[in-house]
Amino acid sequence: MTPVSSSPVGLHRVLAPAGALPQAAERLDDSPEIAPDEVRVAVQRLNLDAASFRQLATKHSADGEAVRREVLEIVASRGKMQNPVTGSGGMLVGVVDEVGPDSDLGLSVGDRVASLVSLSLTPLRITDGLAGWEGRSEQVPAAGHAILFGRSIAARLPDDLPGELAMAVMDVCGAPALTARVVEGYDAPSVAVLGGAGKSGSMALAAARRAGARATVGIVPVEREEMLLREAGLADHVALADARDPVALAAAVEGALGGPADVTVVCVDVPGCEHGAILATADRGTVIFFSMATSFSAAALGAEGLAADVTMLIGNGYLPGHADLALDLLRSEPAVRGLFERRLAD
Amino acid sequence: MTPVSSSPVGLHRVLAPAGALPQAAERLDDSPEIAPDEVRVAVQRLNLDAASFRQLATKHSADGEAVRREVLEIVASRGKMQNPVTGSGGMLVGVVDEVGPDSDLGLSVGDRVASLVSLSLTPLRITDGLAGWEGRSEQVPAAGHAILFGRSIAARLPDDLPGELAMAVMDVCGAPALTARVVEGYDAPSVAVLGGAGKSGSMALAAARRAGARATVGIVPVEREEMLLREAGLADHVALADARDPVALAAAVEGALGGPADVTVVCVDVPGCEHGAILATADRGTVIFFSMATSFSAAALGAEGLAADVTMLIGNGYLPGHADLALDLLRSEPAVRGLFERRLAD
Repeated sequence: MTPVSSSPVGLHRVLAPAGALPQAAERLDDSPEIAPDEVRVAVQRLNLDAASFRQLATKHSADGEAVRREVLEIVASRGKMQNPVTGSGGMLVGVVDEVGPDSDLGLSVGDRVASLVSLSLTPLRITDGLAGWEGRSEQVPAAGHAILFGRSIAARLPDDLPGELAMAVMDVCGAPALTARVVEGYDAPSVAVLGGAGKSGSMALAAARRAGARATVGIVPVEREEMLLREAGLADHVALADARDPVALAAAVEGALGGPADVTVVCVDVPGCEHGAILATADRGTVIFFSMATSFSAAALGAEGLAADVTMLIGNGYLPGHADLALDLLRSEPAVRGLFERRLAD
Repeated sequence: MTPVSSSPVGLHRVLAPAGALPQAAERLDDSPEIAPDEVRVAVQRLNLDAASFRQLATKHSADGEAVRREVLEIVASRGKMQNPVTGSGGMLVGVVDEVGPDSDLGLSVGDRVASLVSLSLTPLRITDGLAGWEGRSEQVPAAGHAILFGRSIAARLPDDLPGELAMAVMDVCGAPALTARVVEGYDAPSVAVLGGAGKSGSMALAAARRAGARATVGIVPVEREEMLLREAGLADHVALADARDPVALAAAVEGALGGPADVTVVCVDVPGCEHGAILATADRGTVIFFSMATSFSAAALGAEGLAADVTMLIGNGYLPGHADLALDLLRSEPAVRGLFERRLAD
């Protein structure tokens, strides 16, 4: 297949191998001329994925100059910043330079934006040799350009929030958006959030309450987080339990809510929470798995083994309007902002 | 936690380690005395999980007698047939022996049943030394007893169908049930089934049509299956595509349905079908992943990278009434039965 015009998911930018999606591609076309539905961004900063930066730093024994050279070489040869070992990318911040006449992203020239799709699929050219970066941090000052496709995700950086805070919010903005949508699909459901004191967890709790949850419980693994979440007041109940222990978790949720949860949101990034989440959820309830440590087969076989009629969702990081919803929660819920600022300061 | 009464998920049968669910337990209580909500089944046959049998046969260099001895030893020491290496179990067939007064499974003494929860969590005692088995097949004639919990899944074996056929249907009965529920949640949606000529795929196609799909397409990887599915007439359209090639798959689905599918059902047991399934699905559509080869992170990151607002479901093997629905489809759709019989004969 040779697309004659631009593809909303960027197929026309794939140089090799033929037919691959941009994320799976070996090499992208990074030329600055944009298609009618594309947007070009003047890059100011790259935010490398933590796993990618760690791999590079380890490989080069923390020799920053060698790390810098390899990042430059990756971007030059691939037309994107995708670590060939980890497969991961990161995010970027920049200023909109040119907007194609058919772009639907709602951006204007001069907007300061963060790209919310991964660098691993974003055409990128670096023009300053990363002169302002010593190769010792994931935060990479950079000059050059990046291309956003017709169907892409970028958010304007708000003027009223520090950049680092806004980026941290956008990084987890899928969780509150999907939680709200699921909660709205029930009539005043009870909601349990595993990892309720974390970034995505606190957002999910605030979103659930606002979307009409009858009662919420935040489950946390340690007393320090229990105290933090209690003080924040984001959940009707806070309970201490190890989410990897199904019986203890279900008992904690049922004790707090008076029965299993109608909606359970898994925001704990450790393996082995699938069975507990299922056991803690009511018949015809929904489990939303946001943790990347989720095992597909453990969830599928666990529900069958427990004869549990629950809907299990793979947490999708994208919903229309997700960044605005999350930023709005941060602005209107001082407790959410407090938890975020505390995490950033740690 | 020491449950004083019986637990619907069998916690009272767990001997070690404390607090584990029966599936994760090292050892279960296999005693024949039943709790008020339990059912005891006189075992006739075990159907070992294919992965488990392969591991045992390989370990013992196909020495059937050694395989038989190890299965006996596993069941005697663990109180269940769970292969310690693969973690998997299998199914069993037997006759209901005693029904507790509080059992909700709807079974009567004398019913011939198949247990649809895994042997890996089912208390089991073997009393005949597996004398009728030579250790050379997954089909194990056996005498003894098994226990079904309050919340378990068992289906009466129908009188009008050969046992092997009924078992094959029950093995995939989650697919048509969940497909029907999702299709009914839309208004006359278009439906694509990847792997439409297989067991779960053909069931999903028949269930989608019956549940009100406007149009269906079965996607198959090879010409022989294309011909089979076309002759069966189970789908409005049949198209040939490699489900691991996102662009080709999306083109095939859109070509057949006139646009992306509202509901996409993944029944192909090979890795790498996540991005194609997402790309082939319409905005606000649903992807149901039934394949155990599904990667959670590939699905989650893929949807985000494609800015795809799709609901992604982990295929749950259990829904109330799923076995009856599947058996009914088999009886009323000669084409489904034909495909199943052909697969069993292969």
